[in-house]
Amino acid sequence: MKNDIMINKIQFDGTTHLVPAIAQDYKTGKVLMVAYQNREALEKTIKTGDAWYFSRSRNELWHKGETSGNTQKVTDIKADCDNDTILMLVEQKGGIACHRGTNSCFD
Amino acid sequence: MKNDIMINKIQFDGTTHLVPAIAQDYKTGKVLMVAYQNREALEKTIKTGDAWYFSRSRNELWHKGETSGNTQKVTDIKADCDNDTILMLVEQKGGIACHRGTNSCFD
Repeated sequence: MKNDIMINKIQFDGTTHLVPAIAQDYKTGKVLMVAYQNREALEKTIKTGDAWYFSRSRNELWHKGETSGNTQKVTDIKADCDNDTILMLVEQKGGIACHRGTNSCFD
Repeated sequence: MKNDIMINKIQFDGTTHLVPAIAQDYKTGKVLMVAYQNREALEKTIKTGDAWYFSRSRNELWHKGETSGNTQKVTDIKADCDNDTILMLVEQKGGIACHRGTNSCFD
């Protein structure tokens, strides 16, 4: 994984302690989904190479695809100029990022 | 502009009244920037065909590129499955989306 994140520079939201994280297909360039990461989710993503998020609805760390098998292997991770948004290029296992069974949550 | 937004279904954040909005280059597929929209910014975007945001730092509506000329012409706008994130395909005037003068805020 190519990692351009300097984790101590990431500006997690002062209230929620989260940043939005975009998963984009590394081959097609399609935006697959947007979810949120806290520091621990971001650290686990960098450490394991799989995308981890923080589920706001379940209020817990979320290893994407742990149940369905549709994990996301991160090939590239970076932050934007303000260090408050994460962009991940991912290889989407099973080709399904959305809980509705579609490739993208924007389909 | 292709518009798949049903504005009354959009789930603006209960506290900030904002949703994250991604601008993606309609040709290259590159993610250019992520900013935020309130209902008025989203309505202006749909009405005018130019990307409007709500600037959290300036606390005001923001017609992207109004000063620099680097406006974003929206070719396609949609929401995700949860209706809480906006994805816009844009034609980036001047090729510069970032205030640092780069094509993308993730460069």
